[in-house]
Formats: sequence, C-alpha cells, structure tokens
Amino acid sequence: MNESYELLQRIKGKKPLIHHITNWVTIYDCANVVRQFGALPVMAHAKEEVADMVKNASCLVLNIGTLTPDLIDAMIIAGKKANKLNIPIVLDAVGAGATSLRTKETKKLINELRIDIIKGNSGEIATIAGLEAEVRGVEAIKAEGKPIDTAKRLARETNSVVVITGKQDIVASKDSTYLINNGHEMMGRIVGTGCMAGSVIGCFAAVEKDRAKAAAYALAAYGVAGELAAKKSKGPGTFKEQFYDEIYNLNEKKLKKGIKIEVQKSL
Amino acid sequence: MNESYELLQRIKGKKPLIHHITNWVTIYDCANVVRQFGALPVMAHAKEEVADMVKNASCLVLNIGTLTPDLIDAMIIAGKKANKLNIPIVLDAVGAGATSLRTKETKKLINELRIDIIKGNSGEIATIAGLEAEVRGVEAIKAEGKPIDTAKRLARETNSVVVITGKQDIVASKDSTYLINNGHEMMGRIVGTGCMAGSVIGCFAAVEKDRAKAAAYALAAYGVAGELAAKKSKGPGTFKEQFYDEIYNLNEKKLKKGIKIEVQKSL
Amino acid sequence: MNESYELLQRIKGKKPLIHHITNWVTIYDCANVVRQFGALPVMAHAKEEVADMVKNASCLVLNIGTLTPDLIDAMIIAGKKANKLNIPIVLDAVGAGATSLRTKETKKLINELRIDIIKGNSGEIATIAGLEAEVRGVEAIKAEGKPIDTAKRLARETNSVVVITGKQDIVASKDSTYLINNGHEMMGRIVGTGCMAGSVIGCFAAVEKDRAKAAAYALAAYGVAGELAAKKSKGPGTFKEQFYDEIYNLNEKKLKKGIKIEVQKSL
Repeated sequence: MNESYELLQRIKGKKPLIHHITNWVTIYDCANVVRQFGALPVMAHAKEEVADMVKNASCLVLNIGTLTPDLIDAMIIAGKKANKLNIPIVLDAVGAGATSLRTKETKKLINELRIDIIKGNSGEIATIAGLEAEVRGVEAIKAEGKPIDTAKRLARETNSVVVITGKQDIVASKDSTYLINNGHEMMGRIVGTGCMAGSVIGCFAAVEKDRAKAAAYALAAYGVAGELAAKKSKGPGTFKEQFYDEIYNLNEKKLKKGIKIEVQKSL
Repeated sequence: MNESYELLQRIKGKKPLIHHITNWVTIYDCANVVRQFGALPVMAHAKEEVADMVKNASCLVLNIGTLTPDLIDAMIIAGKKANKLNIPIVLDAVGAGATSLRTKETKKLINELRIDIIKGNSGEIATIAGLEAEVRGVEAIKAEGKPIDTAKRLARETNSVVVITGKQDIVASKDSTYLINNGHEMMGRIVGTGCMAGSVIGCFAAVEKDRAKAAAYALAAYGVAGELAAKKSKGPGTFKEQFYDEIYNLNEKKLKKGIKIEVQKSL
Repeated sequence: MNESYELLQRIKGKKPLIHHITNWVTIYDCANVVRQFGALPVMAHAKEEVADMVKNASCLVLNIGTLTPDLIDAMIIAGKKANKLNIPIVLDAVGAGATSLRTKETKKLINELRIDIIKGNSGEIATIAGLEAEVRGVEAIKAEGKPIDTAKRLARETNSVVVITGKQDIVASKDSTYLINNGHEMMGRIVGTGCMAGSVIGCFAAVEKDRAKAAAYALAAYGVAGELAAKKSKGPGTFKEQFYDEIYNLNEKKLKKGIKIEVQKSL
C-alpha cells in the first residue's frame, strides 16, 4: 500500500485527539483541517486545564501566531505534561524573527520542552538557528544560508525534526532529509495554510513514530490536495472550499499518483 | 402557517440581538449563522461591558469551548444581569467531562445562574447529570444511560430545557420531549456546526417563550438546511457554503416539507 | 491610468505590512482580505511586542469589536509608536455607542493618539461626535443628524479623515468629501464585511498619503468586487467565496467601469 495513504488510514482509524494551543487568526482552520484528515481537534489554552486536556491527546500542536506571555506559560505547562507522557509536540514558530518577543519565546519553548518537530518558513527557522533573517510580520523576506543546510544543522543541534515550508518543503532529522515537491502557489495566497500545515503534521505525527517521515508525508498529502483544488478554482475563495473538499476526498489513487518526495539519508 | 416558519418570520421581523460570550474557534460562524437566520449577533466578553451589552439583548448564549476562569467570570456577570431582566440564557457545555475545569465551571454556571436551555452532546450532558461519560476533546465517545432518559431527568432536576445533539436531537423539558430527525452526517464532519446550533437555538428562544419548542424548531430548521446543502456539495468545503445559502434561503415550503419532529408529552 | 487601479498596483508592488490589533470574530477575514488585495497582514496584540511589530508596518489598524481594557492598552502602545514613526492609523469604532465601555475607550484612543482615519457606521460616528444614536450590538439603528454633516464636522474637529459606511459610503476630510456609490446589499448580510473594509482602507492608506482619497478608493474597489460577486452567488455562503475571488481578480478594466465616486471640495 502507498505509505502516505497508509498513514492517512491510520489517522481515520484511530481518530487521534490533536490538542492545539494556537493563535486567534487561524484557529478555526487549524481545527477544521484536522477534522477533514479524520482526526479530532481540540483547542484549549487555560493554564488551569491544558495539562488535563493534553493527557488524552496523541499530539500537541503549539503555534505562536498571536502569542502573549500568558499563552506561552500555558504552552510550557502543556508541553511538560506531553513530554512526561511521550506525546509528540509540534511547534510552529510563526513570526519568529519579526519581534524580539517571538524570537525569545520560541527559544524558551525549545529550551524548556523536548519539541519533536519545529516548523517555520525560511526566515523563522534561520532566526532560530541564530542566522540573519528578515521576517516581515509572518512572511520570510530573506534568510542567511541555504535552507536545507540550516534545517539539517538545526536538526542535529536540537535533535528535533526541522521543517521549512516554502515552494519546496524541507523536512530534516539527524538521519534523513525529505524534499517535498507538492503544493500549489495558490496555497500561499490565502491566510492560514501555513498554520494548517502544522496541524496536519500533528495528525500524522500522532500515528507515526518516525517523525520526519510523518511530517514529510503530511506535507505531501496536504500539497496534493492543494494541487487538485487549484485546478477547480478561480481565485482564493473558491480555492479554499475546494481545498477542504479535496482533503476530505483524498484516496489511495490520488496520493499514489500525486506525491513527489525525495529522500536523502544523512551520512 | 407552519410553526417553524412562523418562528423564523418572527426572528426576521424582530431582529433580536443575540449576545454571545463564546469560544475563539467558532466565534465567526456563531455570529454569521445568527445573521443568516435574520437576527443580530454581538460578541462581547469584557467584564467591564457584558452587563451593559446584555441589557439590549433578547438572548444570551454562553459557550465554554475555549473557557478560562476570566471568561467564566464574565459569563456570571452577564448571566446575572440576564436573569434579572428575564432574558433567556442558552449554555453550550462544550467539552464538559473532558477536563475537570470544564466540568467544574459548567456546574458553577448552572448553580449560579438560571439557565433556560442547557445544550451538549451525549457525553457532555451525561457528565452534567453526574453519570459516567467519556468526552475526547469536544467529542462524545461514550455515556452511561440512555440519552433521552438523561435529558428528561436533568430537565426535571434543573428546571431547564435540556438539549442533546446527535444523530437524533433530543429536547426535553419537564413537560415535553421533542425528538428531531433532521440534519445530515456532513454537519458532523465540519468544525462549528455544534456551536452554531447553540446560536440558532438562541435566535429562536429570543422570540418564543416556550423554550423547548423554540429549541426543537431551531434544530429542525437548521437540520433541514443541512440536508438541502448536503445534496449540493461534494465535500465539507462546498457543504459549508451551501449550508449558509440554504439557511438564508429557507422558506415556508422547504420547512413544511422537511421538518421531522416527534413530540411526547410528559406524564 | 485609472486612479483606483494605480493604488492597487502600488499595494501589489510594495506589499506593505498591515499590523492589526483587532477583534476575535473577524480576525481571519481581516487578515485574508489584506492578503487578497496584495498586502501582508499581521495580527499581534501582546503589549510586549506591539511597538516592535508596528515598526515594520506601513499601517496600523485598530478595531474594538471585542475590546478589553488590556487590548486598549496594547492599542495605545502600538499607536504611540506608530504616531512617532508617522505610520498611519485606522480606527474602526465597532459598537461605539452600544456600551459605555466602547464609547469611553473609543474617545480615549482618539484623544491619546493621532488617528488618521476614523471609521464606523452612522450610529458609531454619531456617538463619537457627541450626538444621540442607537447602536444595537454592532448595528446602527438610528442616529441624530445627517451622516454627511456629522462626518464633515467630526473631520474638522479631529483633523482626521472620517468614514461612515452604509448604503452610500461617506469619506470626509477637512478639505474634501467623497461619496461612494459602490457595494451590494449582500455585503451587509454577512458578518465581517464592515471590519474587512477597515482593513482594506488600511492597505490603501499604506501607499497613499492623501488619506481621504485612499479611503474612498479602497471602499470603491472593495464595493466593485462585492457587486461582481453578488452576480455569481445564490446566498451568503457562495457570495463570500466569490467575493474573495473577485477581490483577487480585480483589474484595470473592472475598476474603471465599476467605480462610482463623487467628490465635493470643501469651501
């Protein structure tokens, strides 16, 4: 069976709970994309309940898109519980590098928690890796170094899987590097697809212990749906609804035909 | 005239203000569905203004989907003012049973306020009724007892109307029980339809003093729109936009033909 | 070249960052509409980062739709930095007049900051101007005085551009008054189009120093897209997605043909 489809079937069979502490802009779409991939989303951020909620989750997704110090505190509480229970954590470092608060709090999360998958665009990941970068709001403008090298180095240094999204998505662990050549430029034209990608990675990481593989197949499947949706749409409005339809209607044939992943083993 | 249509006409004529203190995931859809049924939504949660805002409202909808202790405090303030002014309150107990915070705060709201309509899925309502239940995030996994019995008992004990949503929706008051056989499984496939149902109940309760009847016809009309939308959609993306169109375009003929309600009088 | 198209081209060329401190209901749509007009949105509200974020922005949009005193504090911090750096500020006074908190905090923002563009419906602007008005939630029910006179007077008194949205939009500065006869009633049928209009004004103000002209052409272009979308939709669900498509697909020909603006010079 096609590996990506096999993971998708596992999600639909297990219906893992994906606990998010996320931002107020794309919170609905993060929840809804999880639902369309067949998992169960829950969004809960009160410090008084996050440890309790994460106990039943199969993955914790942290997204700093509209962070406050209070929200970071909740992420630390939930993350520590997740670490204790070996529940994987995905961190989407939205806007790291755009303000000193974002950079500082991202580093704090990485230092205080064992993050399984760190995700960002080229500017955000360069910032985390200590390189020069320009992030305008949540958009990467420029970044020092080649993204693939930065991802590999940060993966080695942190022992996390590092994901850089872009025209070509990069997933690097200390063992392997995946290059994902799926997706469509229309995905970058609407707000939310980046955050949603983090949630989709969460769904796949919830059912596959090889986190790099999980992230790579998540992005590939998500990208295939985007390509199919773009063919049926005339702009960002129709694209978004077709995108949800295509995610919901992904099947073995579409995934087998559509997925374009290159894998490189580390030396 | 068809009763459901008659209530819908009252909403469109009166344009009641439906004040929500709700969650950050589905807040847009709760507002928008109210607008499509012809009422006016307002979302306001600052403790400094909720009592002031609720004064002009015809219904207060409380939804604990992303609760914090602060937000519960605002709900208590707004709720006390609503009680004083005889403005009906709908409580959507999202995730009650999933964490101890949600269970505790739900009970607090029910104890400190006179709630007209308590709404939840089978797991959430069982939790409130003191029965064993498993709620995974915001999804009912299992619940002790028959839902209809639980609803009736909780209605008697609290003197509230109790709504359990599911494949068949149940509305129980101490006097009557309504079984609503409308809706479509696609409604359960997208995030937000549960919360939106609470807001729709709020619109109907704003114009009809028989709260059980209001809740039953609200769910039936909402379900009819869902059935019509499902016929025109190929997945959750197209479904959602067709759903809004169908709600907006509900008319006497569609409601008369579509509504499937059974009523049982209590002994 | 058509002036409205020329401004649109400037936005697409410059990709200005539009920093929002806004409400939790329409935050996604405010971000997404900015993206569809070709600018970059960022939503950031932590007091610890707003001054840092606004430094890179070309416009600051403040929207009090779900205000709290804390959020107002963040607006003041961001606004003072914006004033210092001559970054224009748009204030959307959502619900001013509906509660005393909203009225008080709106006046505070206007007193403590130099607001370039104050936007509201007829009831909100009348409230700010000290006239009698009824605002039900976020809807204008009635307002003392003629909107055009109120807008002109408030513009003279505050030295801000004043925008009143409605069937006919009014943009008044101390020098000129624009009447915009674009838009479609379907825009008022869905939640969010008012807030989105504030964000669109922000995009145009980011690239045009004549703020009244910027606001007028923003509303006209936005209205033209709404008119085109209405022709392709059968209700509010299909309307919204067509609306995004039409905004994305606006071009010189459509704008030249569609825009209906009257300008009056002040004496």
